[in-house]
Amino acid sequence: MSTQFGPDYVRAIAPYQSGKPISEVAREFGLEEASIVKLASNENPLGMPESARLAMHAAMADLGRYPDANGFALKAVISAKYNVAQEWITLGNGSNDILELAAHAFVEPGQEVIFAQYSFAVYALATQAVGGKAVVIAAKEYGHDLTAMAAAITAHTRLVFIANPNNPTGTFLPAADIAAFLAQVPEHVVVVLDEAYNEYLAPELQYDSIEWVRQYPNLLVSRTLSKAFGLAGLRIGFGIAQPSITDLLNRIRQPFNVNSMAQAAAIAALNDHEFLARSATLNSAGYLQLTEVFDALGLEYVPSFGNFVLVRVGDDDGAGARVNLALLKCGVIVRPVGNYGLPQWLRVSIGLQAENATFIDALKRILA
Amino acid sequence: MSTQFGPDYVRAIAPYQSGKPISEVAREFGLEEASIVKLASNENPLGMPESARLAMHAAMADLGRYPDANGFALKAVISAKYNVAQEWITLGNGSNDILELAAHAFVEPGQEVIFAQYSFAVYALATQAVGGKAVVIAAKEYGHDLTAMAAAITAHTRLVFIANPNNPTGTFLPAADIAAFLAQVPEHVVVVLDEAYNEYLAPELQYDSIEWVRQYPNLLVSRTLSKAFGLAGLRIGFGIAQPSITDLLNRIRQPFNVNSMAQAAAIAALNDHEFLARSATLNSAGYLQLTEVFDALGLEYVPSFGNFVLVRVGDDDGAGARVNLALLKCGVIVRPVGNYGLPQWLRVSIGLQAENATFIDALKRILA
Repeated sequence: MSTQFGPDYVRAIAPYQSGKPISEVAREFGLEEASIVKLASNENPLGMPESARLAMHAAMADLGRYPDANGFALKAVISAKYNVAQEWITLGNGSNDILELAAHAFVEPGQEVIFAQYSFAVYALATQAVGGKAVVIAAKEYGHDLTAMAAAITAHTRLVFIANPNNPTGTFLPAADIAAFLAQVPEHVVVVLDEAYNEYLAPELQYDSIEWVRQYPNLLVSRTLSKAFGLAGLRIGFGIAQPSITDLLNRIRQPFNVNSMAQAAAIAALNDHEFLARSATLNSAGYLQLTEVFDALGLEYVPSFGNFVLVRVGDDDGAGARVNLALLKCGVIVRPVGNYGLPQWLRVSIGLQAENATFIDALKRILA
Repeated sequence: MSTQFGPDYVRAIAPYQSGKPISEVAREFGLEEASIVKLASNENPLGMPESARLAMHAAMADLGRYPDANGFALKAVISAKYNVAQEWITLGNGSNDILELAAHAFVEPGQEVIFAQYSFAVYALATQAVGGKAVVIAAKEYGHDLTAMAAAITAHTRLVFIANPNNPTGTFLPAADIAAFLAQVPEHVVVVLDEAYNEYLAPELQYDSIEWVRQYPNLLVSRTLSKAFGLAGLRIGFGIAQPSITDLLNRIRQPFNVNSMAQAAAIAALNDHEFLARSATLNSAGYLQLTEVFDALGLEYVPSFGNFVLVRVGDDDGAGARVNLALLKCGVIVRPVGNYGLPQWLRVSIGLQAENATFIDALKRILA
């Protein structure tokens, strides 16, 4: 038996299962990359905005230099757009970084972290990586049961993760429910409100979470540019919280966690209102395109407020894996969610109209 | 008194002091950005290699997608270049990420981490971020005292950081000394050998640390592309270790820690032998250019094996800060190292010939 390194809680971690890259599926199934449709990682099917591409070209001359560790120019844009002081902003290497920073900053081994069943896998991973105790609250209609989550808070709780809309189920919590929850949370508990999919919400569902940040010193709102803003490949997200939280996150943040290209592209993308509107419109149309077919086929799905749909493709616990493999052979990559405890379901990202159609055709053939 | 979040050891962290960005100095001192010379962050004065630029253009189309979480193509290049299996490689968001992953993976609160006085600030930060106890070993001629470091290992030690060449002092440990040290380290202690500046070593000083990795399951060699490879702004580094270490690092690594542009650029840069040779030649010439002036001025400096020189600019403890400020007013950014316990010294990165000349002119005026 060779030496084992590290704490038990680190050795027990099962690594994150990411969506299969197109190149990997091409190698594995002997397919042409160009023929493959990837609807697996909730990416923006429009790709990166042109505004970001131009900004990156301008930034390219300087890549021998370290990034600006303080992200001065990018924070200025976030500050103006979201109407918060720069001292309330933490930049992250994707919002994944913000989620992990929160676990590292606020949780010691043995302390409790609360999150919902069927919520983002990184909550569990980040908790385990710091030796925290995960307190998983049973889902209510595939979403968060905020009443049960509030009731689960103890003196040992340090962190609560809430995603709105939720991934991988797509459920949505109305603003009033979150406001009522926040009012109940004791001040020693930090709440991370993960709004990765916020930009896909219809205008009438939008709410001002920054106002809550002003009210609650224990609230951290997390945002990403990997979804509606189209910059998944560059890794950029940010957190907004009062300085008592933001100071700590910036202390343990890697000084150059956000690369120069990401900073330049994010500045452009955050102000590209046309691209964001186009992305939301495309997403709404794609949601109808997919769900009309699911309805016609009699497939159950969870009404989604994000850029993906969770659909039940069979009654047995092998259904998700079986249909996923069949889809892969057709060159369609979606996300099996057996690791989320949803073995009968698949999560399908909403793509371009033609990509959705390719998926639908393949699905119909497989289920026929 | 408002609520304090997080463990004491996190709240006690003083954030990393990075080199001032050119834009910040321009704002602060009312200077033109183009007139400013930055010799503060040990960057490659040649900037990014042209080969990397071309690779990035090709990769730009895909930035709406998440990066390859497994870094398949980049690991293949590293595997071939360094003659190790892909299962021995961990990709990092800069080698800073590798250093922090090591602390997170191997150190629980209260356990000991050994490193040398006057070594890279991130060793202390990463130790503190996980609540580890820093055991700082007094430097020997501004470098590592490996005999004292080996003697300091106890049953509570989990990690030892060694930098070769060392930053910020530039000292070098001959291969035989490291080999003798490794043979003494008990198997429960992980040794991180940080070779960020390896590519600047003269051929006769180069040694094969990967052979030690084959011999010692508790050795992790860390490399970066931020220095000689010219990609500081993109954030890419990697670790090489046997699977018992690599598996753990990959468990706690953020799944998309290395962005797509960095992966593409690194593939090109690792094979750009011409650029690497040109960088090393430029560095040798610049080292002579600087040290001849230091000799002429009677300034003490530490003979350097990296792309920077630590030079003593006065006898009093205000000397470093005073000369640094005077240099900033002349538009020259170097690195004060008072936070390293070296208040009489400045660390000067080796730049282009003209940049070095600008620094020399300013220094001569200031010291006159």
